[in-house]
Amino acid sequence: MTLYLIGLGASPLEDISVRGLKCVKKAKSVYIETYTCPMQATIAEMESCFGKTIKELSRGELEETNKLIGEAKRQDTALLVVGDPLFATTHIELIMRAEKAGVKCEVIHNASVLDYVLDTGLQGYKFGRIVSLPHPTPELVESPYRYILENKRIGLHTLLLLDVAREQQGIMTIPKAIEILFEMENRFKGGVIKEEEKWVGCSGLGTKNKIIKFARPEKLKNLDFKHPPYCIVIPGRLHFIEEEALNRFA
Amino acid sequence: MTLYLIGLGASPLEDISVRGLKCVKKAKSVYIETYTCPMQATIAEMESCFGKTIKELSRGELEETNKLIGEAKRQDTALLVVGDPLFATTHIELIMRAEKAGVKCEVIHNASVLDYVLDTGLQGYKFGRIVSLPHPTPELVESPYRYILENKRIGLHTLLLLDVAREQQGIMTIPKAIEILFEMENRFKGGVIKEEEKWVGCSGLGTKNKIIKFARPEKLKNLDFKHPPYCIVIPGRLHFIEEEALNRFA
Repeated sequence: MTLYLIGLGASPLEDISVRGLKCVKKAKSVYIETYTCPMQATIAEMESCFGKTIKELSRGELEETNKLIGEAKRQDTALLVVGDPLFATTHIELIMRAEKAGVKCEVIHNASVLDYVLDTGLQGYKFGRIVSLPHPTPELVESPYRYILENKRIGLHTLLLLDVAREQQGIMTIPKAIEILFEMENRFKGGVIKEEEKWVGCSGLGTKNKIIKFARPEKLKNLDFKHPPYCIVIPGRLHFIEEEALNRFA
Repeated sequence: MTLYLIGLGASPLEDISVRGLKCVKKAKSVYIETYTCPMQATIAEMESCFGKTIKELSRGELEETNKLIGEAKRQDTALLVVGDPLFATTHIELIMRAEKAGVKCEVIHNASVLDYVLDTGLQGYKFGRIVSLPHPTPELVESPYRYILENKRIGLHTLLLLDVAREQQGIMTIPKAIEILFEMENRFKGGVIKEEEKWVGCSGLGTKNKIIKFARPEKLKNLDFKHPPYCIVIPGRLHFIEEEALNRFA
């Protein structure tokens, strides 16, 4: 029996691969986890498109129980994941637990935000560490700021993924993220977050409704990015082709 | 009329997305470029699988002529690309030229080497700049070495993509790459390339024949990685989960 981890890309109904779709059809039970990324289709739409019942797994069920692994021991089981299945670290732990239990795992990769963000025209080779920006606790966490600083110091672009945590303060918007970044600059004073630079604001990457805007932070704050997921790129040193590509979104 | 840039992922026959396959079928003419990555299927196999004639484009035809754009003005045209279509910078220039000529472009993303390398268990968030390792000219280029050093200094992993240039010295193997890296250490003396550290050697990522090995460079040099494409990861600081995941390949 096999546990399939199947990447859905950005749009669950059409970005799934031919191989992924075959495995969904082959699996006796199909689960989905939706807490790492907002979905571009409803579960009902996916069920009718794939011809399968799809059960939603909470974060707790995925991380703390052996539900999936127990089931995969008895029958082919699939877990659907938005984007690429290994971009979230949880799933490597799931795979290792499954392997220890004697369950074969097969990962069916798909495009992740790292691929979709290339629509900006920025070069994949010139991104540094990707940074998750969490909602601030009373103590501002310094690490995201330090990571941006380290990337910038060596001329690299920083992709900032904005918090999609549902339980706490909800999905972080682009204006909120910009506020947090300027608060960090005020606090840690590394000269990293500058009003006069242009950043890239993105929403709905990978979907027909994607929005990409290249402007100063103050201007990005006043634009309507419509639907999540949201991200921001703080560019490092730009190649002239990258600059030309970005200016299409100015 | 639309110019579709369609990512094939690692295995052209099965990793193509449902959306990508639809666009291949809709296109009146279908091209493929194969010079950035070795192919996991022949063009004849793809033709019989997709039910379309597929014409091969040389690098020169793609970069220097307006062949594709001219054709896309008259009829829906598709360009198939191994992995993700925007990972190679050439294609952004193609898109910008097409847009200037009034041709609509649609990019259909797919998993790139950035996604497939996550099978190692290393975390996507902890990779620094990706580095291409070219065949050495008489003057050793310093930049790949400097990039590894910069990533390592801030604890990040470096994904090294080995040269697949066909015209010159052929595809770079893992033993050859390791030799070049030690030559660089001898020359630039940054203390980055160390015999006593363990690296990750990978081949055929994304295919059923993938090989992942975690060992000292000297040992990696003597293992048989079979078929290209090859890559090496020089790990930065490892989280204990990453270390546990890598040890499955020791």
